[in-house]
Amino acid sequence: MTEASGLSSAGMGVGVEPELLAEAVTHELAAMLQAGNYDAVKLLLEPVQPVDIAQAIGALPANLQAIAFRLLSKDEAISVYEYLDTATQQSLLSLLRSGEMREVVEEMSPDDRARLFEELPAKVVRQLLSELSPDERKVTAELLGYRSETAGRLMTTEYIALKENQTAAVALEIVRRRARDTETIYSLYVTDAERRLTGILSLRDLVTADPQARIGDVMTEEVLSVSTDTDQEKVARTIQRYDFLAVPVVDLEQRLVGIVTVDDVIDVIEQEATRDLYAAGAVQAGDDDDYFSSNLFTVARRRVVWLAVLVLASFFTSEVIAANEDVLQKVVLLAAFIPLLGGTGGNVGAQSSTVVIRGLSTQSISSLGPLRAITREAMAGALLGVLMMLLVVPFAWWRGESALVGLSVGMSLLAITTLAATAGAAFPLLFDRMGLDPALMSTPFITTCTDVAGTLIYLKTAGWLLVHLPQLVQATGISTQFFALGVF
Amino acid sequence: MTEASGLSSAGMGVGVEPELLAEAVTHELAAMLQAGNYDAVKLLLEPVQPVDIAQAIGALPANLQAIAFRLLSKDEAISVYEYLDTATQQSLLSLLRSGEMREVVEEMSPDDRARLFEELPAKVVRQLLSELSPDERKVTAELLGYRSETAGRLMTTEYIALKENQTAAVALEIVRRRARDTETIYSLYVTDAERRLTGILSLRDLVTADPQARIGDVMTEEVLSVSTDTDQEKVARTIQRYDFLAVPVVDLEQRLVGIVTVDDVIDVIEQEATRDLYAAGAVQAGDDDDYFSSNLFTVARRRVVWLAVLVLASFFTSEVIAANEDVLQKVVLLAAFIPLLGGTGGNVGAQSSTVVIRGLSTQSISSLGPLRAITREAMAGALLGVLMMLLVVPFAWWRGESALVGLSVGMSLLAITTLAATAGAAFPLLFDRMGLDPALMSTPFITTCTDVAGTLIYLKTAGWLLVHLPQLVQATGISTQFFALGVF
Repeated sequence: MTEASGLSSAGMGVGVEPELLAEAVTHELAAMLQAGNYDAVKLLLEPVQPVDIAQAIGALPANLQAIAFRLLSKDEAISVYEYLDTATQQSLLSLLRSGEMREVVEEMSPDDRARLFEELPAKVVRQLLSELSPDERKVTAELLGYRSETAGRLMTTEYIALKENQTAAVALEIVRRRARDTETIYSLYVTDAERRLTGILSLRDLVTADPQARIGDVMTEEVLSVSTDTDQEKVARTIQRYDFLAVPVVDLEQRLVGIVTVDDVIDVIEQEATRDLYAAGAVQAGDDDDYFSSNLFTVARRRVVWLAVLVLASFFTSEVIAANEDVLQKVVLLAAFIPLLGGTGGNVGAQSSTVVIRGLSTQSISSLGPLRAITREAMAGALLGVLMMLLVVPFAWWRGESALVGLSVGMSLLAITTLAATAGAAFPLLFDRMGLDPALMSTPFITTCTDVAGTLIYLKTAGWLLVHLPQLVQATGISTQFFALGVF
Repeated sequence: MTEASGLSSAGMGVGVEPELLAEAVTHELAAMLQAGNYDAVKLLLEPVQPVDIAQAIGALPANLQAIAFRLLSKDEAISVYEYLDTATQQSLLSLLRSGEMREVVEEMSPDDRARLFEELPAKVVRQLLSELSPDERKVTAELLGYRSETAGRLMTTEYIALKENQTAAVALEIVRRRARDTETIYSLYVTDAERRLTGILSLRDLVTADPQARIGDVMTEEVLSVSTDTDQEKVARTIQRYDFLAVPVVDLEQRLVGIVTVDDVIDVIEQEATRDLYAAGAVQAGDDDDYFSSNLFTVARRRVVWLAVLVLASFFTSEVIAANEDVLQKVVLLAAFIPLLGGTGGNVGAQSSTVVIRGLSTQSISSLGPLRAITREAMAGALLGVLMMLLVVPFAWWRGESALVGLSVGMSLLAITTLAATAGAAFPLLFDRMGLDPALMSTPFITTCTDVAGTLIYLKTAGWLLVHLPQLVQATGISTQFFALGVF
């Protein structure tokens, strides 16, 4: 990203609706380019935000993209390029002369550049790296060395580091000079001779300080930092919890190597939420949220694996039903309640896993602890089961034409909702404890497993009540009023 | 929130893990308070972040909460109070003398105060309002007048407004003076005599400007703003899209009335993600993410309504099965595939609604348009249906002991996945078009509806292939090798 902390110049007059603006620009831009009206394009784009220009260019056919991009001023071109999607970035790299692009790539934020290089063919990356200045080449190679989705990959190396014995006036002068080429000037870092982080101050602290005060006296020595291998989600939670604008990133020797800014963190929070949602919906998440621009086969590929796993799991339910064919043969209407029981169990299980997975993501479950969380979900499942029995038992009695069918359905329902809620809570917590992503223990998977167990419980209960019990009764010769209610 | 934009002093030494810190403080604090060791408490809390102190105090028993809160310095007490949950805020209000609390309530951020007042009994609010200074009373009443979840409710009225004819040096002096009591000093707003927003500049622009330059010449005249009734999700999207630190809020006359800062927006993004996830899991979202601290009956209440709706919907599936009892009577094994078909249809429908609902939330679906999105999902559903047939048809043929059972299951599967994907995409889009929250068209609801339609398709297909077709064949006297494969 470009202007993390400045308010970059915005589009059009006061009070414009952002979305309408972006769409209007997209339409006009294409028309003007096709008409060859390049001066009008410059005039059109001048007051528009880089992200909106990037969207408008991204929507153009490839040949017009290159023309539009050439019409931007150098500074604008760099900002816009960072907001383009990777496909457009790549196509511009190949369409424009390498001389034109070298400067853009050189001036990009190191973190954005690392993200682009990751997607490019190795040959192109080698070429581009060789054209970078030694400093930028070193930084880029360093960033690419960190694992993706860690603080090291997310951070930028453009920050302002001060020294303890500088005065506030000197520091303010440094900030002034570096304001144009650094990611943020609002969080300032203090390091010692070994580049170790010793303190932090905000521009707010600096402008309110006595100009002659030592930075060492103005700064805060207590600094929360993350290390290069900290997971991006944890970086996001830290910035969110403390309302920071940026968090410093240190290496193993506590040396300051970069900072992560709040705007990148918003994207991480969004990406993690998408991932959780997709997992709950049995869709594999892509690297970025490109679902609607990817082709049909990519779409199918991101869904087919989970679907196949779930289909195979349903085979077990089919097996359970087939194995209890004799019970169904005797009372065919029992089949009418299998989807109801499986569905309700699945829904209760999905509810429990949803709240637990979300609770793990937002760390709100920690107030309760895993065992109490599971117990509470189990009790909630039982309570919900009892409430649903009030609806289901009368219906099953009437539709199944037998009190014993109603009883079978009701008893199974209670067992299934309790079991489903317990499993829905326990599986994600277990996964989390094992260091795996709890969202992977996706809702549909729990749903399908509950289906197998629930069907088994139901058919066994019904078999006992409707087949074995009557046989037992006949064998012992006991006959009571009770069975007047029943199916026999 | 307190320190949107400053880096408030952080906890303990360099490189501390935030979570461990908060937990450690919580444990020590309780022990020290019980021992009456109040000096140690002061020493313990001094370097700790307000949000961590708030968490530690929130975990204490009510009587210790009041003692701990009294030990904080005035400034600290205000910051900490803003981070406490509403229940603790309320209990402190009633436990501490009103004199002690008046100052805290007076000095709170207006947006946090409005949020607190909303939760308090009307009588307490009237009392507190009467104790506020006239200025703060007016601001609070104004904020409470906006609908919840709008920019008006989310905004703070503490911002720095400059005039066009001030010089940069004068403006910087204003910033210096107001730095301690304003929400952010990094985004500065320029207004005319009627308080109308005429421009914007960042502190970055200000510190790099010539001290004698007029603000009117330094500022950007093109300003993106939101109005007081803009939905909070849209406010969040604006800040996220443009990497802003804050966005100005104007009233109907374009007068600047407040600003929304990035830290509040992160919480909105998180809250909206939770809401989408809960909807997908058929759980009603609460006002804040308090699921794990609410009692069992609140938990049940937030789940029982959706569950009951889904149970009632399943009654239709039961009816469909009961109405086709004759077909099942003839081939009981057909029942073994009902959960498989319903489940697969449900999963495909859930996948489609997940990507469409998320696409609507993140506005990534707009690149495609609703009709093309639905068509594409329908094709994806058909493609996935064909792929699943490769697994399911052989299994159904073998387990159902008949090629015609395999054929029935396979044909129904294709119809169901296509239908489910279409419905999963179309319903949320329709809801969105009607101005309703698409997430309400929740995944489990689509799942259950697919179940009814899918079961009907399956039993009708099977009935035709396994019951009517053979009768037809017998009636016309045709007999072929084909039926050697079948069940007859």
